[in-house]
Amino acid sequence: MTENLLPGERVDQLLAQNIQIIQSPQVFSFSLDAVLLAHFASIPKKGKIVDFCTGNGAIALFMQPRTTAHITGLEIQERLADMAQRSVTMNDFNEQIEIIHTDVNDAFDYLKHDSIDFITCNPPYFKEQPKSKKNPNPHLAIARHEIHFNLEDLFSVGSKLLKMNGKIAIVHRPDRLIDILDTMRAHRIAPKRIQFVYPKKDREVNIVLVEGIKDGKTDGLRILPPLYVYDDQDNYLPEIKALLHGE
Amino acid sequence: MTENLLPGERVDQLLAQNIQIIQSPQVFSFSLDAVLLAHFASIPKKGKIVDFCTGNGAIALFMQPRTTAHITGLEIQERLADMAQRSVTMNDFNEQIEIIHTDVNDAFDYLKHDSIDFITCNPPYFKEQPKSKKNPNPHLAIARHEIHFNLEDLFSVGSKLLKMNGKIAIVHRPDRLIDILDTMRAHRIAPKRIQFVYPKKDREVNIVLVEGIKDGKTDGLRILPPLYVYDDQDNYLPEIKALLHGE
Repeated sequence: MTENLLPGERVDQLLAQNIQIIQSPQVFSFSLDAVLLAHFASIPKKGKIVDFCTGNGAIALFMQPRTTAHITGLEIQERLADMAQRSVTMNDFNEQIEIIHTDVNDAFDYLKHDSIDFITCNPPYFKEQPKSKKNPNPHLAIARHEIHFNLEDLFSVGSKLLKMNGKIAIVHRPDRLIDILDTMRAHRIAPKRIQFVYPKKDREVNIVLVEGIKDGKTDGLRILPPLYVYDDQDNYLPEIKALLHGE
Repeated sequence: MTENLLPGERVDQLLAQNIQIIQSPQVFSFSLDAVLLAHFASIPKKGKIVDFCTGNGAIALFMQPRTTAHITGLEIQERLADMAQRSVTMNDFNEQIEIIHTDVNDAFDYLKHDSIDFITCNPPYFKEQPKSKKNPNPHLAIARHEIHFNLEDLFSVGSKLLKMNGKIAIVHRPDRLIDILDTMRAHRIAPKRIQFVYPKKDREVNIVLVEGIKDGKTDGLRILPPLYVYDDQDNYLPEIKALLHGE
């Protein structure tokens, strides 16, 4: 396998699912957020799934064991799209997972309106502001800041791609929750399920998971049981360990 | 004290605060929701506080030990306003707490625009719909259904009464959360703090606490650590017991 690796890359194994994934601390490594989103999402058993901002393909890869749906990962950074494609090949998933190097805003060059059953996205979290401090590493800056892709793009493109009653699930930060709910509804997506992730007992939420349905009714929002990540000694709690390592 | 009681009424003591309160199962008894709201609210130490829909005055009474602010309770049902007034008298709080029998929509007959520092409200939770099942007891129906007072009224009147940077804290149900956030912002109130209450481990949220600030910035929403109410044997957890009984 190692002949496929570029300098600085390594192969990590997600033990819970026996999937191998190419990572690179200098370019992109998946985070717990991606694992939580793949776990939270109401992934359909079949049909068509698209993962926006797929990065090194982590969410697309994590969803694979739970569905026979065709999964398309879209990634604007050529370096990351190439990493994702090599991980797909390494796992022999080429028939089910397709990686496309594209700006998500150009998704319609590859995918039809009203054709997708489910969309996932772990987007850049931070608002792009003229004076905002960004990571000097351009790969990480693009993945973390709304430089090329913001919430408006996410739900605008997402809503157009989804079939009626298609769903979209995202992971984000709690201070953007109201923006998220507003932007979803501005694009005909009704928020239906939210799960809050607390780093540990007695701490405030630091991750939110939100899923909505296209052209659904806006009442009946459910707020799922909370998730905690760490115990008092900063070890992963069993539920999180199980997601990561299958223990 | 008992000479002040009407048939069906009893005096309960909130041990945590050594406050006595007149209750009546047939007319109105405060719920855990009121206790949670009084606990959650960022009650100012001084100034002017108004409690909308004060019922038997529970929230006004619970806030009293934590502030020297003047507290006004507004209640549309004469029977309940009278109960609240008698509890205020029983606790010798007449100098600090005033109960007014009025529709909250007529608050401006008694209170000035831009004059209030803090508002609390445990409003009717259920949407008023022509076919909705209501409690046959009219006292309970008015307290629980948006017959005379809805979210629009709450934040419209609330925003007008509040000073700039005044705050409003409410308790409600999670399926109305999006309505709440929308209606707040439609009336220049920025949501700032949310706390979710889960009945027990691994159950979905059934109570939400939301606080906002008039003319505040809309970013920076905080989601506080969660509250749980019951343990696996349906006993109150210690944190809730402490709120109720001071144990």
